[in-house]
Amino acid sequence: MEEKGLLYKNLDDTYEEIVAMRRYLHQHPELSFQEVKTPEYIAAYHEKLGHRVRTNVGGNGVVAYLEGANPGPTVALRADFDALPIQEETDLPFQSENQGVMHACGHDGHTATLLGLAKVLNGMKEDFAGTVVFIHQHAEEMIPGGARSMIEDGCLDGVDVIFGTHLQAQVPLGEIRYRVGPLQAAADFFDIHIQGKGGHGASPHQTKDSILIGSQLVNNLQQIVSRRVDPLDLAVVSIGSFEAKNANNVIADTALLKGTVRTFDKEVQDLIENEMQTIVSSTCALSGAEGVLNYHRGYPALVNHAEETAFVAELAKEVPGVEEVTESPKIMGGEDFSYYLQHVKGTFFFTGAEVTDKQSYPHHHPKFDVDERGLLIAAKVMGTAVLDYMAKNK
Amino acid sequence: MEEKGLLYKNLDDTYEEIVAMRRYLHQHPELSFQEVKTPEYIAAYHEKLGHRVRTNVGGNGVVAYLEGANPGPTVALRADFDALPIQEETDLPFQSENQGVMHACGHDGHTATLLGLAKVLNGMKEDFAGTVVFIHQHAEEMIPGGARSMIEDGCLDGVDVIFGTHLQAQVPLGEIRYRVGPLQAAADFFDIHIQGKGGHGASPHQTKDSILIGSQLVNNLQQIVSRRVDPLDLAVVSIGSFEAKNANNVIADTALLKGTVRTFDKEVQDLIENEMQTIVSSTCALSGAEGVLNYHRGYPALVNHAEETAFVAELAKEVPGVEEVTESPKIMGGEDFSYYLQHVKGTFFFTGAEVTDKQSYPHHHPKFDVDERGLLIAAKVMGTAVLDYMAKNK
Amino acid sequence: MEEKGLLYKNLDDTYEEIVAMRRYLHQHPELSFQEVKTPEYIAAYHEKLGHRVRTNVGGNGVVAYLEGANPGPTVALRADFDALPIQEETDLPFQSENQGVMHACGHDGHTATLLGLAKVLNGMKEDFAGTVVFIHQHAEEMIPGGARSMIEDGCLDGVDVIFGTHLQAQVPLGEIRYRVGPLQAAADFFDIHIQGKGGHGASPHQTKDSILIGSQLVNNLQQIVSRRVDPLDLAVVSIGSFEAKNANNVIADTALLKGTVRTFDKEVQDLIENEMQTIVSSTCALSGAEGVLNYHRGYPALVNHAEETAFVAELAKEVPGVEEVTESPKIMGGEDFSYYLQHVKGTFFFTGAEVTDKQSYPHHHPKFDVDERGLLIAAKVMGTAVLDYMAKNK
Amino acid sequence: MEEKGLLYKNLDDTYEEIVAMRRYLHQHPELSFQEVKTPEYIAAYHEKLGHRVRTNVGGNGVVAYLEGANPGPTVALRADFDALPIQEETDLPFQSENQGVMHACGHDGHTATLLGLAKVLNGMKEDFAGTVVFIHQHAEEMIPGGARSMIEDGCLDGVDVIFGTHLQAQVPLGEIRYRVGPLQAAADFFDIHIQGKGGHGASPHQTKDSILIGSQLVNNLQQIVSRRVDPLDLAVVSIGSFEAKNANNVIADTALLKGTVRTFDKEVQDLIENEMQTIVSSTCALSGAEGVLNYHRGYPALVNHAEETAFVAELAKEVPGVEEVTESPKIMGGEDFSYYLQHVKGTFFFTGAEVTDKQSYPHHHPKFDVDERGLLIAAKVMGTAVLDYMAKNK
Repeated sequence: MEEKGLLYKNLDDTYEEIVAMRRYLHQHPELSFQEVKTPEYIAAYHEKLGHRVRTNVGGNGVVAYLEGANPGPTVALRADFDALPIQEETDLPFQSENQGVMHACGHDGHTATLLGLAKVLNGMKEDFAGTVVFIHQHAEEMIPGGARSMIEDGCLDGVDVIFGTHLQAQVPLGEIRYRVGPLQAAADFFDIHIQGKGGHGASPHQTKDSILIGSQLVNNLQQIVSRRVDPLDLAVVSIGSFEAKNANNVIADTALLKGTVRTFDKEVQDLIENEMQTIVSSTCALSGAEGVLNYHRGYPALVNHAEETAFVAELAKEVPGVEEVTESPKIMGGEDFSYYLQHVKGTFFFTGAEVTDKQSYPHHHPKFDVDERGLLIAAKVMGTAVLDYMAKNK
Repeated sequence: MEEKGLLYKNLDDTYEEIVAMRRYLHQHPELSFQEVKTPEYIAAYHEKLGHRVRTNVGGNGVVAYLEGANPGPTVALRADFDALPIQEETDLPFQSENQGVMHACGHDGHTATLLGLAKVLNGMKEDFAGTVVFIHQHAEEMIPGGARSMIEDGCLDGVDVIFGTHLQAQVPLGEIRYRVGPLQAAADFFDIHIQGKGGHGASPHQTKDSILIGSQLVNNLQQIVSRRVDPLDLAVVSIGSFEAKNANNVIADTALLKGTVRTFDKEVQDLIENEMQTIVSSTCALSGAEGVLNYHRGYPALVNHAEETAFVAELAKEVPGVEEVTESPKIMGGEDFSYYLQHVKGTFFFTGAEVTDKQSYPHHHPKFDVDERGLLIAAKVMGTAVLDYMAKNK
Repeated sequence: MEEKGLLYKNLDDTYEEIVAMRRYLHQHPELSFQEVKTPEYIAAYHEKLGHRVRTNVGGNGVVAYLEGANPGPTVALRADFDALPIQEETDLPFQSENQGVMHACGHDGHTATLLGLAKVLNGMKEDFAGTVVFIHQHAEEMIPGGARSMIEDGCLDGVDVIFGTHLQAQVPLGEIRYRVGPLQAAADFFDIHIQGKGGHGASPHQTKDSILIGSQLVNNLQQIVSRRVDPLDLAVVSIGSFEAKNANNVIADTALLKGTVRTFDKEVQDLIENEMQTIVSSTCALSGAEGVLNYHRGYPALVNHAEETAFVAELAKEVPGVEEVTESPKIMGGEDFSYYLQHVKGTFFFTGAEVTDKQSYPHHHPKFDVDERGLLIAAKVMGTAVLDYMAKNK
Repeated sequence: MEEKGLLYKNLDDTYEEIVAMRRYLHQHPELSFQEVKTPEYIAAYHEKLGHRVRTNVGGNGVVAYLEGANPGPTVALRADFDALPIQEETDLPFQSENQGVMHACGHDGHTATLLGLAKVLNGMKEDFAGTVVFIHQHAEEMIPGGARSMIEDGCLDGVDVIFGTHLQAQVPLGEIRYRVGPLQAAADFFDIHIQGKGGHGASPHQTKDSILIGSQLVNNLQQIVSRRVDPLDLAVVSIGSFEAKNANNVIADTALLKGTVRTFDKEVQDLIENEMQTIVSSTCALSGAEGVLNYHRGYPALVNHAEETAFVAELAKEVPGVEEVTESPKIMGGEDFSYYLQHVKGTFFFTGAEVTDKQSYPHHHPKFDVDERGLLIAAKVMGTAVLDYMAKNK
């Protein structure tokens, strides 16, 4: 297919601009739900290309539309563009100019990749039959995320299939990772308020000791994963915070526990929430105290569609720069791309971008960085997916 | 004995002044180890009476000496004079003038009682054979307390016997309570630092979960009282504070626990400290973590001497205003009068001073108050103890 | 008082017979509620002395009556006579002839003491004014005990005061121990049936794991003593038995826990039973399982009457052979003499009988033995109590 | 391929004999490691077919060799033939004649299938190029199993590939289940001896309470699965037995815990054994007691080879009688076929054989039975695997 050769060549030619855009965005990160300049920047770029653009989609989202010369399927590509409340500690020349805010998860790269790809596809629009929808999503890093409201605001209207990728700072450059079915966990959050009865440390019998109750609770919650969840299912229940700060010689009247739950299956998620309710109330009942569990469902598990995943895994093998296509292990972290996959077919894959000329750091680390050549590979795989999908679904 | 009649009459005549002094002191409370005006006030009063006075004894303590006409035994009386970091909430006309500081434990009354008694005994010095040592102690409310340093600074030199009392806001006026042997508990304090290994809440296997470890520790520490201490001994181990405040989705790297231990017997105290060391290290070892126990011994148990206690219990029955003399239960709170009793014979007793014209509140409560007639009774019992002791030990 | 001299002399003369009787009884022990020969032996002895005798009192009990020459108070003396299901391992020449049954708690001695004393008092009946009631009680070692049914069957009718003693194999010969108020604990028993749901060890999520539930329960029960009982009260909660025997690769459907509770105060006893109910049901609820607590109250706490205890403690000091009269610590073991003291005034005291010519062993040990001279001392103190009480209450 | 048509036809013709053999074997079950008649029966059958036969291979195993007309690869087929210590409760006319012993897992069927297939392949030996090795394995039901010693005794010598199947009483007839990679768990066993110090239930302070220690241990062991194992790995740790049977009023000196561990990965297995050692010793250390963990490794995880599994899954789709070929979930139970797969390539799959004309019961149930038509399907799939493998690897 001649078009793909052209796609790769044009992307190669656009690489410098992609890098420049990524660095500009890196210098100007914006927090989730507080994005202003970034969507303006994105919208302006698409407008200059002559794309139809919708702004403030479901909040701060931007959606741009590129019509091919002929009718055909509608393929959506998604990139998220929010940053994190982290003070950058890299020594990059294009460090964040916003104090305490950093693109420490690679969303700058996702956005630059999609913009560069938009430009190239725009130049090839005579060659394809169908529509490309560029979904620039705000607020991936913070529950409830931007995906849900963008979908409610119509960003998937008419879309047949969606593709997305995440640059991975700890996956080697040249590697693409796919996974059929559950790829990323549902990430739920909870807090538990224990209301005991305070008193003097020398008179425990007149109290309901919230610290003892909280401690029993932490222990009892272990049994959810060890006993109640099917060993063949995956699940995590972690308490991250235990607050009951007092003087030495008191008995605490209250304690506040906070934590997270990760699952890949809605039934397991339901089971865990129910078991937590039972364990909180029964543990508090041991001391005649009251406990309240506030359980907040985060992003659902990201479940890739089988056919579309196989499709991308297969085509990726032929993309220049891709050296290895492997099955990804399941990932315990959440991703709100999961919402799109609840509405349309599609797949989310990982693009290796590990730096090798210096130490690599994980995502959300103040020294996080990616190998920018990963952006080019991501653009090529995504672009190939668009062209191949349209060719296949004429 | 005619002197006692005189004592009671003179104390009755001094009652108004005692009350006035108590109210003045109540208006001008000073925190433990920060007492400046109060010891000046006390010293000035004794100096005016012509007593030999030592100031800055072991810190902010004041000791005054009254010689009787004839030689005889040396009897010490002790009153503490520090206040608490509590914002007063009474509606007394003589409320604290010092923001956030309050005589919420009755030490104002102890001091006024002792000053009034000093004046009366001074007036009767021709009638007795011996020396009275007035020990005005600072910093009873805060470890390490004032008693130990005052003793080191000589406040007990030459003393044959010591008496002390505490006004009790929840014991009826007219009741005196004594107890042979252990009366008030040793009050120790501890903190435990758990050093685990932090990480992401979704990856517990890469961490050492400090909150789980701390929770296991709180549970395991219960076994000290339930299993390791002889059921015939009394002991309390309470955790008052559990600090491990973090985001929901992390695993805590550290946790800090604080608590108190109460015992009446040095062997039990030693046992508990040892058991705690074992439990802290073994519980942390469960997860390959490190724990450090810092155990601070507070005031030792207050152990009254048998003969002196019986002596006061007996004489109290005949003191005007005393309606009942009962055996006190053991008290879980600490009192640094215990140090004096490690050096000389003596006893510490309770003087009922519960208010009946309004609701009564416990010690250390912002609405704490006493029935001031209790001060007069305390002065009479203490004064009687002096006279009787001298008479008996000529 | 001349009579007491006579009492002591006559008892000295009867000592050999007392020893012979004790040895005979030791050779022929009978289990609680299965006593046949022993009560016959006792009844025959009293009948021979001419005493009025009631047999089968409340079961296997024997009560004998000795009227003094003149009217006066009625004084009861109690001795228990049952033995234990223990295989004797002493090398005494008068070992048990009943396989697996042994007087390993000294009740043989109690009975011989009381019989010898009966003979001596019988010989002195002209000298006293009043009635002596000899209560020979069966089944002290096994709940519900013989005391309660003997009382219901009238053994205390007309009785003014009761005295009893226990030979103590670990208290030195010559020592008498008394205690006003609570002396021996209420000894309650319980069992807890956990009904979970069994299954394969590889599929815990399909089960309710009774062993986990039982284990949580054992841990949670610790908090009763450590948190819920006033630290100034004494209490023990112990689990003695945990039965859930299965193959390695199953999940247990049931577990059976058994234990004991010791208290000295009915309020504490009630509190503990209530707390146990709460903890059993809440702990089972953690796993959706069912738990049943069967709580059996044993003998109530033995609470000595103040005046009668002081009376015996005082008179004991003058009894030949008594070298020391001390206050006993509280004892965690139960004793159904407690029931008598709920109906009439009286006291229960300990008579030292530790062997010194060989190693001493505790009560209920297969090598248990007593110094038989303790029997003579016990008889003298009991006899003195009778004479003094009658003298005092003419 | 014409040969496969012949294979299926010939197997259809042999079905009655296969059923007859299965029923004969069902009537004459023999326990693991005690098999005598069964291997004789098997050996005789193969000898009659003219196969070279080795008996007493690695114990009671039988290996038979069938050479095709031409040289080619060596394909092993394995069937196990031991029975279980279960008293049969079916109403089959061919019930077990051996009291308390039953083919309750289908090994009778495995053996009859392999014998029937051997006969058919023998008749087709002119048609294929290669060797078939019939591995009749004893003792699959009891650790250490027969596979390991048969391998040591050479049963895999020269073998290129191995196939095996298990009839599944709860998988529908007509369904074949495969799985690449880990299919069945490593099933380990352990027991833990806790040596505390016994004593009276009223005096816990003189003891080391084995029941409390055991209970803490059960709780602490939960953290292995909930905290120490990677949530992406599968693992189970179950305590099946807790033995500490005593009277109510004692403290247990010892407790014995027994349980099982299931894993799919040797690293996880090693981790768990290590963590258990740490948790046992640290938990006992809490009370100064001693604990001994005896950890027995069972069969390793059964890990199917990718290519051979895909090969069987693919060919099974074309086998007459097979209606569905599905991916099997992982199975928590162990299987010593795992050892063969550590030495040669191959795969183990499941053949549905659920009865539908009566209630179906799980494996190891006294009423267990299979639909005998499953044997025919198993024989056809196994036979096809032989022919296809040889054709493909000429």
